Amino acid sequence: MNYSPALAQLIAALRRLPGVGPKSAQRMAFHLLERDREGALDISRSLAQAVATIGQCRRCRMLSDAELCPICTSTQRDPALLCVVESPADVVAVEQSGGFRGRYFVLMGHLSPLDGVGPAELGVGQLETLLAEGSVREMILATNPTVEGDATAHFLGELATRRGVRATRIAHGVPVGGELEYVDGGTLAHALAGRQLLV
Amino acid sequence: MNYSPALAQLIAALRRLPGVGPKSAQRMAFHLLERDREGALDISRSLAQAVATIGQCRRCRMLSDAELCPICTSTQRDPALLCVVESPADVVAVEQSGGFRGRYFVLMGHLSPLDGVGPAELGVGQLETLLAEGSVREMILATNPTVEGDATAHFLGELATRRGVRATRIAHGVPVGGELEYVDGGTLAHALAGRQLLV
Repeated sequence: MNYSPALAQLIAALRRLPGVGPKSAQRMAFHLLERDREGALDISRSLAQAVATIGQCRRCRMLSDAELCPICTSTQRDPALLCVVESPADVVAVEQSGGFRGRYFVLMGHLSPLDGVGPAELGVGQLETLLAEGSVREMILATNPTVEGDATAHFLGELATRRGVRATRIAHGVPVGGELEYVDGGTLAHALAGRQLLV
Repeated sequence: MNYSPALAQLIAALRRLPGVGPKSAQRMAFHLLERDREGALDISRSLAQAVATIGQCRRCRMLSDAELCPICTSTQRDPALLCVVESPADVVAVEQSGGFRGRYFVLMGHLSPLDGVGPAELGVGQLETLLAEGSVREMILATNPTVEGDATAHFLGELATRRGVRATRIAHGVPVGGELEYVDGGTLAHALAGRQLLV
């Protein structure tokens, strides 16, 4: 198809969004140009501003447009609890669960020596500085339940223990509301091994 | 969730894209900021440029950044055939079928009196000017097979006939490669009514 150059350029650019293929990109471009030009300008401005202003929180590495993110500056948060996650999306997931009132540390990845991701890339130095401040008493390792996530949790757990900080790992098992029949074997084995006393 | 202001603003803006809900918008924002800031700037620039430069082709109303779109300026196109469609996406669909070498006219909608969409909004004046030029001999009505699309086709068909231009409607029936068993009743009734002599 012979699009006009600016249109072809826009469709190619929109394909850089995750999960957007040629068909969706075309649909987005047409929608914005036919029906929501104000929206197109809004997205354009927001992206430019986000790239210009959003960096990482100096303390927890969460995406933030201030030096410290809203969670790190909040006085409502328990500084004794530190939840370590792999990505900003994980922070959002834990926040939305509503079950955590401590602070976070975002690794922005997991240990992966083959990809050149070691402790330095994950900001482990920053994490050690944080632990050295002395207010953290428990470090909750909420990395993903994958081989790399487990290895990262293990590595950070040892680091915390050496500093006298209690290291815990979030529980893995059968999802609440799920049916046993449809749970995969690995999860079920985990759930059995991690069984807890009922009373 | 307490996002940083610029991040909240970006996620809200991305939700203006069609088919993008809160979860996808967040995923897109994080992806761009964590891993593809160059892509974010590319999208930002392309959107701003598209809004600034893309208007409608003076002749066929297709989205175009020049006064005339690439199809209208092409010398490879048969000026005797004019395919009338509802939207730019329909032009792309017909182009990709590879079965049409004429030109287009894009209505940018269909007749819908209750929504205030009459002939003027669909550029019927422009279409009449085009027909008055005298080169169009057949007008193929490829509006959608909906009540509004059919009404629009009927209206435009009469207009063409009055000017001595042959008006045709694309065939509606069982999709090629489809199985009769799974075709809906309306389509099947259409296919039966529109049956053609085999030899």
